[in-house]
Amino acid sequence: MSLTFILVEPSHPGNIGAAARAMKVMGLTNLSLVNPNSFPSASATAMAAGADDVLASAKVFTSLDTAIQDMQLVLGTSARSRKNSLELLTPSLAAKKLAALTSKANCAVVFGRESSGLTNEELAKCNGQIVIPTASSFSSLNLAAAVQVISYEYFKEASLKSNLTKPSRLNQLKLASHQEIAHLVSQFSVRLIKRSNAADAARLNLKLTRILNKAQLESSEAALLEGVLKCRD
Amino acid sequence: MSLTFILVEPSHPGNIGAAARAMKVMGLTNLSLVNPNSFPSASATAMAAGADDVLASAKVFTSLDTAIQDMQLVLGTSARSRKNSLELLTPSLAAKKLAALTSKANCAVVFGRESSGLTNEELAKCNGQIVIPTASSFSSLNLAAAVQVISYEYFKEASLKSNLTKPSRLNQLKLASHQEIAHLVSQFSVRLIKRSNAADAARLNLKLTRILNKAQLESSEAALLEGVLKCRD
Repeated sequence: MSLTFILVEPSHPGNIGAAARAMKVMGLTNLSLVNPNSFPSASATAMAAGADDVLASAKVFTSLDTAIQDMQLVLGTSARSRKNSLELLTPSLAAKKLAALTSKANCAVVFGRESSGLTNEELAKCNGQIVIPTASSFSSLNLAAAVQVISYEYFKEASLKSNLTKPSRLNQLKLASHQEIAHLVSQFSVRLIKRSNAADAARLNLKLTRILNKAQLESSEAALLEGVLKCRD
Repeated sequence: MSLTFILVEPSHPGNIGAAARAMKVMGLTNLSLVNPNSFPSASATAMAAGADDVLASAKVFTSLDTAIQDMQLVLGTSARSRKNSLELLTPSLAAKKLAALTSKANCAVVFGRESSGLTNEELAKCNGQIVIPTASSFSSLNLAAAVQVISYEYFKEASLKSNLTKPSRLNQLKLASHQEIAHLVSQFSVRLIKRSNAADAARLNLKLTRILNKAQLESSEAALLEGVLKCRD
């Protein structure tokens, strides 16, 4: 029950390393290679930058068929929408599908060659096709960049699923209360209002209220601003 | 009215090229570099793989301040959640914000050094902080991979948005530029700093920078606050 990324015939070993790093940074460690041009390789290790364990445990196969032999859900990535009837998935939809299934099925995402992607025959072995959206004028997504996008979307979905109730850093902040801000506003506005008529005064007070609220100040920050006003020029 | 990606002190020229490619594949072309270690460079061009035009038009600056001088919304990327009170945005939320604003404001996303990211001082100049979610055990996201994730999220949002044509209230906003805010900060801090020692002064300046940036003020609001300071008690 796992998620494996499979690179089919990668020609540049640096891309294998960069892909391993892209995966690991999103918590993924299962990498399979189908007929890599050169592996293991020093430039793969250099680009892995700490994801050496992903490279060390990578499995090498001589065909896509053997690489996906035990897989239960296989999604192929392809920029082109081929004349096939595969379900087309955005990275986000694919991630939802994978996150829902990885705990109970062996899942794989297949990435094609740098130059030519996956063949129609290879795509036909997949249960669905992921299309990463790109600019129409320049759709040359780097292999490791494609791995990064899919890993990222998967990690988002998997994290959502696993910890919906993580305490956020905002819990540690002591945000200023409404009362503190109201007091700060009054300190600001009293200066302007002295020299305004009543209508202007109300308008200025509203503006200052808006400004000082949208900053979402901490108590200490509100106190600092109040301190500024107390300093004489 | 545009979206610019700013790389601060990138040390590996290959990453600049890979970042340019990551941007262009998602339809983005404005790249700025702050004190790149080596640029232009053959390895940047090699990694750009067709995004040479993005490199050729890249602007080089000697400080982040000058790079963001005319920017109206600046989001900094940082893996760490610092002890600051900047608004924390997921890439997806940041993309929504940027997609809503790029047609009427100069927006920038700032990426830090490969080794150490952005400093607290640099983050304080930003209006918000983007945190790309990563595995806690290995959070070493490659620079170009980070650029790819943000570009991808932006492209998704911008494509979604171009299909809708909802006029938003944001149309009428004229956000303050970095320069306007920097001036406002100086007006605030000069009052406090007079009575502080040098270390306190730097700390107070940093705090004020952060407070006044996170409010994401309009020009008229910045002017109003400056007006408050000019009023004597």
